[in-house]
Amino acid sequence: MQPNDVRGFFADWASLDAEDYLLLEYYFECSGEPELAAAHLCSEQSTAQWKRVGIDEDYRPQFAAKVIDLKITAHLPEPSYSLQPEVRGAMTACQVRIAHPHRNFGPRLPNLISAVLGEGAFFAPGIPIVKLLDIHFPPSFLSAFQGPQFGIDGLRQLLKVYDRPIFFGVIKPNIGLAPAPFAELAHQAWCGGLDIAKDDEMLADPDWSPLAERAQLLGRARVAAEQATGVPKLYLANITDEVDQLTRLHDAAVANGANAVLVNALPVGLSAVRMLRRHATVPLIAHFPFIAAATRLPCYGVHSRVFTRLQRLAGFDAIIMPGFGPRMMTSEAEVLDNIAACLDPNFGDIKPSLPVPGGSDSAATLEHVYHTIGHVNFGFVPGRGVFGHPHGPRGGAASLQQAWAVLATGQSLNPPPADLPAELAAALQTFGSH
Amino acid sequence: MQPNDVRGFFADWASLDAEDYLLLEYYFECSGEPELAAAHLCSEQSTAQWKRVGIDEDYRPQFAAKVIDLKITAHLPEPSYSLQPEVRGAMTACQVRIAHPHRNFGPRLPNLISAVLGEGAFFAPGIPIVKLLDIHFPPSFLSAFQGPQFGIDGLRQLLKVYDRPIFFGVIKPNIGLAPAPFAELAHQAWCGGLDIAKDDEMLADPDWSPLAERAQLLGRARVAAEQATGVPKLYLANITDEVDQLTRLHDAAVANGANAVLVNALPVGLSAVRMLRRHATVPLIAHFPFIAAATRLPCYGVHSRVFTRLQRLAGFDAIIMPGFGPRMMTSEAEVLDNIAACLDPNFGDIKPSLPVPGGSDSAATLEHVYHTIGHVNFGFVPGRGVFGHPHGPRGGAASLQQAWAVLATGQSLNPPPADLPAELAAALQTFGSH
Repeated sequence: MQPNDVRGFFADWASLDAEDYLLLEYYFECSGEPELAAAHLCSEQSTAQWKRVGIDEDYRPQFAAKVIDLKITAHLPEPSYSLQPEVRGAMTACQVRIAHPHRNFGPRLPNLISAVLGEGAFFAPGIPIVKLLDIHFPPSFLSAFQGPQFGIDGLRQLLKVYDRPIFFGVIKPNIGLAPAPFAELAHQAWCGGLDIAKDDEMLADPDWSPLAERAQLLGRARVAAEQATGVPKLYLANITDEVDQLTRLHDAAVANGANAVLVNALPVGLSAVRMLRRHATVPLIAHFPFIAAATRLPCYGVHSRVFTRLQRLAGFDAIIMPGFGPRMMTSEAEVLDNIAACLDPNFGDIKPSLPVPGGSDSAATLEHVYHTIGHVNFGFVPGRGVFGHPHGPRGGAASLQQAWAVLATGQSLNPPPADLPAELAAALQTFGSH
Repeated sequence: MQPNDVRGFFADWASLDAEDYLLLEYYFECSGEPELAAAHLCSEQSTAQWKRVGIDEDYRPQFAAKVIDLKITAHLPEPSYSLQPEVRGAMTACQVRIAHPHRNFGPRLPNLISAVLGEGAFFAPGIPIVKLLDIHFPPSFLSAFQGPQFGIDGLRQLLKVYDRPIFFGVIKPNIGLAPAPFAELAHQAWCGGLDIAKDDEMLADPDWSPLAERAQLLGRARVAAEQATGVPKLYLANITDEVDQLTRLHDAAVANGANAVLVNALPVGLSAVRMLRRHATVPLIAHFPFIAAATRLPCYGVHSRVFTRLQRLAGFDAIIMPGFGPRMMTSEAEVLDNIAACLDPNFGDIKPSLPVPGGSDSAATLEHVYHTIGHVNFGFVPGRGVFGHPHGPRGGAASLQQAWAVLATGQSLNPPPADLPAELAAALQTFGSH
């Protein structure tokens, strides 16, 4: 790129029609001039060659991604990460906002991902270190998407739970356990007060636990628990499988008694989820395998909230995400960013998704999670905290409701009040040193 | 996990039936005991809780992933990368081989990805830094997959090109250019000697270049070029789109005159590609957006050859990958690893995929690429090297054939022999300083 060409990739945001552009925020480290590097980042993700040889034309005004803001944030003696092949010497750390014209590809998730996380982002000349920090969509783009069918309000109506977090539980053990004892564990947990008993994200449709049989037994157990407790329950069946099986498995799970389905979003693909959303009659819940492979490092890859926004766009009613606590190796700020992305009111007519931050939770962590989030619009998803409770799943689920009963009155569990119910006392003792 | 439990996640490889297990190689850095960390890595990706509370049972013998080899490779004063939340202090770097029982999920790509790149890999207690280095499948697992329909031999038969690299070219410009002039560029390149004129991976089905119209004009231009040159040509149409559009777009592209289709593998999803493979009548070619987000760092994420193996498994006949040269920020060793994964004979009955290492190539880089690979079973995919050639696309394509004519006789272009054809001389002059 010639110095003269750089200007073609810069624009004044006020001069552009906001409805025509996605807004992208990247962090990057470059060895040369930041303006040239930022222009390359734009060029490579849009009009890399903007004219034919020998013809006087320029596709940039309509089709180029354009820098609308560029800040130098630091001067570094070396790149933040050592790379192969080696990149040595001083780097300039920058933050850039780019307006990307969505007319280049339209409201299609695979093409969107290709544009903002493709060769343009990761192979722009002079930019070995780059991270997509956030993405914003104009209403004209969002309006092409259905988003969640139920959303938070819809989930609450299904469960008739309006004033507290929604209690999920990951049925454990799962890998290797046959459907009948698996259903019995769920039944106990529902009777103890769990709202949603869920399959582990690793539990598929294997011969030792066929989905149809599992859904049938869990569906019966669910109805029995609903009759015993008088309140609605959800069985969240994992239908993660090959894309061409998703609608069949959705139908089989629902016909047999599941009333929500889990999909591992990235492994299946967000576009396949969007396809499933058109067909689904029950809530879709996302799980997060693979995402951390691209999101953990502070200066490289993509911020996890980008995937949260895309999962909401694809139509998930609830999004399970790495939560608080040292086990999940995710900063409190990042968890809160993801929760905010689920709830962001600036998302067209698309409903919010229920954020479900998870990881080694139990009655002993509920207070911290609740106070850190600051409101009740979240799902809480213990595994061992319910199914590894010393009194069994019924006691584990009861301990969550008991913990909430304390917190709902404004009291703290740290230290706990006198005369705790036995299940809550056992949970605090077993899981509290975590 | 209690010290006693660790042993349940170790096994002697000779005692296992190799047909029942995937073999995984991970690099990781841990703060505590390597044996405990490796056991957690296995536990979290399989039987995290292997028994019910109060019942004497153990699902590990049949269902646990098991360490079969653990080596300490270095003692580090700090983790290789600074993280948020911070992890400080000495780390032990390890390499581990794990046998993962595929009965846990069966021959399903999304469940495979969830198992080996999910919560198990990235959230194992004590392992903040981890990279999946490689994966090996037993024949019993591979036999469930179709793999490539054409493979290298099939592509060569379609093109009647048997003894040299296959010459692809990315038609440029593309974003913003209408189908008629776009077809004219391709026609010139085919007539100059290009085998496969391809859409850019960013070129979808937008209103300014509808796929059906583009395929029709390119199809006509292709037939005209075949008649003019007397040899078969391929038009590689990018059908990357929402999953529920893939078969429709495949059919529209093929009916109108495309005879190969491009899919951005990760953005669309490997499982959707496997679905398309069942339907496709023409070669499927992969492009690599998003992959670098998880593969660039030497010690974190996943090695790109894992995705190459999975793309071959999903059925791609050719796999475009970051190639040689500084622009692609990929080590020569990594490119060669990916080429080897395409060709690996130890892959059941699944055909090899044509490796297509790309990035800023031209007649000036062909010699280095050819000699580094060491044989002719690769695709060569210039963009500007053909379509930005000073003599136009016909000259750019001719320069590739002319360069090959020199190399095929065992001569070098560095320095070039006397009496070079004009197109090749111009290519070396324009692109040779790269």
